Amino acid sequence: MPRLREGTLAAHRSVVQAAILDATGALVARGGLRAVTMSQVAADAGIGRATLYRYFPDVDALLHAWHERRLGQHLHELAGLRRAGGPALDRLAAVLQAFGSIRHRHPGVGDAAPLHGGAAVTRAHGHVREMVHGLVSAAAADGAVRTDVPPAELAAYCLASLDAAAELGSGEAVERLVAVTLDGLRPRG
Amino acid sequence: MPRLREGTLAAHRSVVQAAILDATGALVARGGLRAVTMSQVAADAGIGRATLYRYFPDVDALLHAWHERRLGQHLHELAGLRRAGGPALDRLAAVLQAFGSIRHRHPGVGDAAPLHGGAAVTRAHGHVREMVHGLVSAAAADGAVRTDVPPAELAAYCLASLDAAAELGSGEAVERLVAVTLDGLRPRG
Repeated sequence: MPRLREGTLAAHRSVVQAAILDATGALVARGGLRAVTMSQVAADAGIGRATLYRYFPDVDALLHAWHERRLGQHLHELAGLRRAGGPALDRLAAVLQAFGSIRHRHPGVGDAAPLHGGAAVTRAHGHVREMVHGLVSAAAADGAVRTDVPPAELAAYCLASLDAAAELGSGEAVERLVAVTLDGLRPRG
Repeated sequence: MPRLREGTLAAHRSVVQAAILDATGALVARGGLRAVTMSQVAADAGIGRATLYRYFPDVDALLHAWHERRLGQHLHELAGLRRAGGPALDRLAAVLQAFGSIRHRHPGVGDAAPLHGGAAVTRAHGHVREMVHGLVSAAAADGAVRTDVPPAELAAYCLASLDAAAELGSGEAVERLVAVTLDGLRPRG
């Protein structure tokens, strides 16, 4: 039954890969990107170095895979908030709050800058922009967001504004930033 | 009269330097940063290559000096708007409009990215932030800007939001972005 065997192998590979990326994430959390070495990841993941090299050729590939998985988790969280029930404005507020909080926790400076400058982040940013654009359009149709400015421009405003979350000093400050940003969207007159 | 002679030499140097940077700017405007070569700048500035090398050791130094001069011109423009007469909110609006317009004309992408990532831009950005912070504080004292959020956070919001000007398609869109940003600053209640 070659099909079953293939499936089993794929499942095994996926479990090992997850363990590798978990070990990578724990190392980054403790000591930053520079703390990640192939030997340490292999030891922490409970596999041999030779096995690790069959999954990832070098630390750079490892870090990019780990970072891409985290981006996917963030997008998944935002997509869940977008799809939740309730008025579009409430869902927009929830997505902006979550995005601001992500930007706050992951400012993308110091040794993380190269990861943040990569194509995966640009792609993820495009997905967030589409989400926000859709919610702004829906909230504008509800009469809850201004219609004197095109939704695409309002979405660009929201994402740019929330970039300030990366330099704010507290979660409360991020909440205030989200409130100010949303106030800029209110219908005029 | 050695003092007079020194003054004359300094004035001469400053005229030559301005001509060199003008020639650099004209080349950048026509063909981008890659169009700038030492030979072409010397020819366009009407000086010999040997003279040019006494002012700038290489193209990189030339481009940084030209860019730093342009940053200074932008800061000078913004400082003039800040010092102009009238209510703080009007001066804030004028500074934000001018800053948005500068960001729109100089998005800092492509081959200009290295210049925008440099220390001179970080320093200039700090000056703009101080200006905006001061005007936000003054407008808040006038009752024209919200006081439920600290002025420093509102200044960070303004500058981050106006970063979106770099990707907007027209001057009208930049004006709308400035209006939306200012609406986020209005007193609540």
